[in-house]
Amino acid sequence: MIQSAVHTHETVPTTFIDVKGTKFAYRTFGKATGIPLVFLHHFTATLDNWDPAVTNALAMNHPVILFDNKGVGSSGGKTPESIAEMANDAMDFINALGFHQVDLLGFSLGGFIAQDLAERHPDRIRKLILAGTGPKGGEGITELLTAVNNAMADGPAKVLRNLFFTGTTSGRAAGEQFLQRLQARNANRDIPSTDQTINAQAKAIITYGYETDTSYHQLLNIKQPVLIVNGTEDLIVPSINSFILAKYLVNGKLILWGDSGHGGIFQHHPKRNLRPTKA
Amino acid sequence: MIQSAVHTHETVPTTFIDVKGTKFAYRTFGKATGIPLVFLHHFTATLDNWDPAVTNALAMNHPVILFDNKGVGSSGGKTPESIAEMANDAMDFINALGFHQVDLLGFSLGGFIAQDLAERHPDRIRKLILAGTGPKGGEGITELLTAVNNAMADGPAKVLRNLFFTGTTSGRAAGEQFLQRLQARNANRDIPSTDQTINAQAKAIITYGYETDTSYHQLLNIKQPVLIVNGTEDLIVPSINSFILAKYLVNGKLILWGDSGHGGIFQHHPKRNLRPTKA
Repeated sequence: MIQSAVHTHETVPTTFIDVKGTKFAYRTFGKATGIPLVFLHHFTATLDNWDPAVTNALAMNHPVILFDNKGVGSSGGKTPESIAEMANDAMDFINALGFHQVDLLGFSLGGFIAQDLAERHPDRIRKLILAGTGPKGGEGITELLTAVNNAMADGPAKVLRNLFFTGTTSGRAAGEQFLQRLQARNANRDIPSTDQTINAQAKAIITYGYETDTSYHQLLNIKQPVLIVNGTEDLIVPSINSFILAKYLVNGKLILWGDSGHGGIFQHHPKRNLRPTKA
Repeated sequence: MIQSAVHTHETVPTTFIDVKGTKFAYRTFGKATGIPLVFLHHFTATLDNWDPAVTNALAMNHPVILFDNKGVGSSGGKTPESIAEMANDAMDFINALGFHQVDLLGFSLGGFIAQDLAERHPDRIRKLILAGTGPKGGEGITELLTAVNNAMADGPAKVLRNLFFTGTTSGRAAGEQFLQRLQARNANRDIPSTDQTINAQAKAIITYGYETDTSYHQLLNIKQPVLIVNGTEDLIVPSINSFILAKYLVNGKLILWGDSGHGGIFQHHPKRNLRPTKA
């Protein structure tokens, strides 16, 4: 199922698959065999918002699958307005690819979806990485639009730097390097998401933030091994949510990086050996 | 200065050094060269309370120094009643050994001392590991004796298992293995601390818990790299304190293990390659 073991994040073609009548865009690369690692992306993101320093590094030991969920980027269909429906669409995509079992890396919004999938499909989801995310009803999640508006202070080109990295010298530098890496793939790029998608995602995120999950039942139901990663200064899904994930996930481990924000995973990637293994 | 590079935790002789007129007991082993890693131990602990699975593993890449601070175990003198005085005694010991620069691993009480040393001697302390510990005035630290009393429910032989590990099946098993490893050194063991030492340590810990450090000045003053490690279920220095350390230490990284307590470092040690490198 992994067509592109000789490819990297930068070179792999975008491919398409029919998922219950809707065309989904995806890219697969990395190790040819093993349980695939499916990436679930953040608010407003497309295929080109994944950091090649992260994807290529993980592709050394795993088949990697990036995809646009329903309505996102180059995928067809309409983006739904709830995490549960987004999770259903992601599961349909995994089914269409024919994988019995996958690992998930969920970043921010993607982490909400990953938790939903892990709880409802324990036999299909083997392990999780939850980056810059939090539990249902977690602290501060309803303030999404305030955080985004604040981050727009330096114009739209710098919004991800301001949202994902700290304002210190090293945080700024890491943010600029991240923005550069997002341009490393210079051909066959994805197309931006529509307003329909972005509005539906915002509604799903804020609704999730307003939900309650007394005693963290969802977290207690997730028995899979979970690696939780974040910076200590997350402005969108405040870092205390990562602490709560670690406390209530029965098989969790937390890594929190100082002087790092929501995009800690894009700051503390491996600094070398970024080329994936040849098939 | 490292006399015992061919030795392990189990075999290294206890040696003594005069520190400003007081005899201090210590053990050094591991790598013959490099910056030594000095271990600062917990409430009631002696040289034999360090886990060989941790010390031998770290000794593969570092000279390791275990010691009894003033009044503790086989060391002479009277144990002082404050963290600052304990830190002074530890610095005197490091000076007596002739080291210009050291790394510190501070566990619980030892972590309080390590923070004090790192703040006051930035040129002498290169890096820290803070395990199962917290900041000055941290949450729950004043409840030390309640936590210890609760842990006595299964008798004194199980108090460290109950205090350091969770009550789950895997937590209990890890606790029992830890207790066994503490007996792996079966000759030339240390002697228990006196009531004077234990009472002075309890007073120092509880006083530290009642201190205030508005805006976490001490943490902000510590510029060295710090690895913070703990379980999510620390009963003595509640785990939220580790989160606070990560947030306010400017060069910190936190690892929190699920289903683990105060002694997380004694549960998540390397499971193999425990023999130190020969000199």
